[in-house]
Amino acid sequence: MSLIVQKYGGTSVGSPERIAHVADKVIQARAQGHDVVVVVSAMSGETDRLLKLAREIDPRPSERELDVLLSTGEQVTIALLSIALEKRGCPARSYTGAQVCIRTDSAHTKARIMDIDAARIFQDLKAGRVVVVAGFQGVDEHGNITTLGRGGSDTTAVALAAALKADECQIYTDVDGVYTTDPRIEPKARRLERITFEEMLEMASLGAKVLQIRSVEFAGKYNVPLRVLSSFTEGPGTLITSEEPSMEQALISGVTANRDEAKLTVTGVPDQPGIAHRILGPIAAANIEVDMIVQNVGEHGLTDFTFTVHRNDYDKALDIVKQTAKEMGAREVQGDNRIVKVSIVGVGMRSHAGIASQMFQTLAAEGINIRMISTSEIKISVVVDEKYLELAVRALHNAFKLDQAAQR
Amino acid sequence: MSLIVQKYGGTSVGSPERIAHVADKVIQARAQGHDVVVVVSAMSGETDRLLKLAREIDPRPSERELDVLLSTGEQVTIALLSIALEKRGCPARSYTGAQVCIRTDSAHTKARIMDIDAARIFQDLKAGRVVVVAGFQGVDEHGNITTLGRGGSDTTAVALAAALKADECQIYTDVDGVYTTDPRIEPKARRLERITFEEMLEMASLGAKVLQIRSVEFAGKYNVPLRVLSSFTEGPGTLITSEEPSMEQALISGVTANRDEAKLTVTGVPDQPGIAHRILGPIAAANIEVDMIVQNVGEHGLTDFTFTVHRNDYDKALDIVKQTAKEMGAREVQGDNRIVKVSIVGVGMRSHAGIASQMFQTLAAEGINIRMISTSEIKISVVVDEKYLELAVRALHNAFKLDQAAQR
Repeated sequence: MSLIVQKYGGTSVGSPERIAHVADKVIQARAQGHDVVVVVSAMSGETDRLLKLAREIDPRPSERELDVLLSTGEQVTIALLSIALEKRGCPARSYTGAQVCIRTDSAHTKARIMDIDAARIFQDLKAGRVVVVAGFQGVDEHGNITTLGRGGSDTTAVALAAALKADECQIYTDVDGVYTTDPRIEPKARRLERITFEEMLEMASLGAKVLQIRSVEFAGKYNVPLRVLSSFTEGPGTLITSEEPSMEQALISGVTANRDEAKLTVTGVPDQPGIAHRILGPIAAANIEVDMIVQNVGEHGLTDFTFTVHRNDYDKALDIVKQTAKEMGAREVQGDNRIVKVSIVGVGMRSHAGIASQMFQTLAAEGINIRMISTSEIKISVVVDEKYLELAVRALHNAFKLDQAAQR
Repeated sequence: MSLIVQKYGGTSVGSPERIAHVADKVIQARAQGHDVVVVVSAMSGETDRLLKLAREIDPRPSERELDVLLSTGEQVTIALLSIALEKRGCPARSYTGAQVCIRTDSAHTKARIMDIDAARIFQDLKAGRVVVVAGFQGVDEHGNITTLGRGGSDTTAVALAAALKADECQIYTDVDGVYTTDPRIEPKARRLERITFEEMLEMASLGAKVLQIRSVEFAGKYNVPLRVLSSFTEGPGTLITSEEPSMEQALISGVTANRDEAKLTVTGVPDQPGIAHRILGPIAAANIEVDMIVQNVGEHGLTDFTFTVHRNDYDKALDIVKQTAKEMGAREVQGDNRIVKVSIVGVGMRSHAGIASQMFQTLAAEGINIRMISTSEIKISVVVDEKYLELAVRALHNAFKLDQAAQR
């Protein structure tokens, strides 16, 4: 007998029929001998409907009240799913975040979970009930309703799984697992059986948006086995776990691409200590997040400084940097918002040399010019012109034989 | 400086525009120097939308889960109203029933309020905030969400006013007060400045559906001055208070009419002890509520027994009574579901003789035959044929000069 936490997203509970289908899946897991705790999101479209109401009253509504408002979305779903379970003869109890004491800090609209009181849930499980918990929400120390931000239901599920020491946390979505790359770009993309938390983190943050990053961090930290699978089709999905030393590692697990990048370069900067801070300080002050940063060694005491921001922030960043460059006496500012970032991710590169040069060679062979390079322990990212995105992804997917399951 | 509890119903908060209007009214009350606690219902249509979702899944949904579901309706409104208040620079805080500890029993869908913890509300009022509380809902001793049943927001408002020892509880609806009779029947109907709790109870239960009966009982019990007024038009509304001995009493406060009645008569019943129980026992067992009961003294040891039920229960009641009559050896069963009950209500009749005969004389002068009579301390009800309803109401309204404000 094992304990499973299942999480169903907005599309999976988007209508009374779909909720009935989820109830069937929960009962199926129970029939296999598992205790089940279910975390649900708001029905698809509901959060946007509520946001629209609020914004009709105030385009910038109070964040405390926004949380009171939005948390009703999940509350509707827990009630409806419990009704569907009980209708099928399966005893069930629904709980809001506050009711099972999902204690968070007071950062409304983006609160972080501090603690969960599992006692009440264990009591219900012991009594043979399915426990249905509202995702995305919690309660602060003063009893105020908080929400965890978009996608926060994943985090709720993982946090519950950790608190309950569940055997597995299953995230049901509309895709049947994590793929080696975007199948819309490379039809030979293959579902991964297994991937490590670290790889998943790099994949998620690089644009393969299957899971909320924070929930993966959380799962890794508490070592909660996480499984991504589809609520629409049968299948084992992808299991995300910690690295097992015994396991034959793939060199590369996936290729990701991100179109949301824009690049800014300040050339001819006097090469003195504090340049990076001088250039990026005003950017940070304007609440613009910086992704990649590269500083070249220059000649004649001058250097070039390049960084990327989200494409939405490009115009704003450009204005700021131009002002800074002028003040610093830099030569000029170049900008480019038609670039993309392509990355390969894999824990295997830790123990294998030559992955980077294989990547660069592959791109060179296709005539793709690399504009920027950035590396981490398990990831190599390059910036290339936007037009090369698909070509780069396919070439790398092929070069590292990601279509072949035998790798692992 | 006084403390006012204001309650706005579903129509008053039916859209973002209407919610903005309510915010203006609340701020107006604050500008007059009052502390304000606001109780709101779900936006009109919302409760029905949620019920429909639940019933698509199960025509008879779990009552515990129904409460979890329906309580979201008011939660949406408290958030939106607080957003509207803050947008106007008025500090506000929303609270669900659970958050301000509106403790109820565990009778889901029709719970009763046991206790309210006013401490948190006083704290906010002291800090200069408007407190916005979700009506209709509470929490039982186990932390389960409960609801008070349809119209329960009135009860929430009155219970809060009692707990906070508020100076007045204002119930905003779509009518501008309590009238001497239904203005659709008698255009000369007049808004009452003032009425007693007892009169209001008789008026409400007799069909003048302005306030939920339970909330009036509650207000009377804790002596909370209750004011009914319109959220759409300006005006003082009607104040409902306890009887003041000094006050010149009107003979009659209002004329009410109820079309929901049906009459059943068992004739030729052997006149023995226990007849009433014998006839009404099976009716009660079938969960049919009985309204008026009249037993005539008969001849030759036989008697006639008449009672009324809600028109919806007429067919069911008729079947049951026919069976009982057969077992008792009664002569026959007569039924009539085209009758109405017309009543006059007024605390003045306690100290004035001759009101009943004036009522009967008025009806006789119009050729209206009285089928049944029932009296209480402050009310006289008669059953007449349905076709006489308007005529009877107008004649009585005129006879007791209810169109003349000078009365009080």
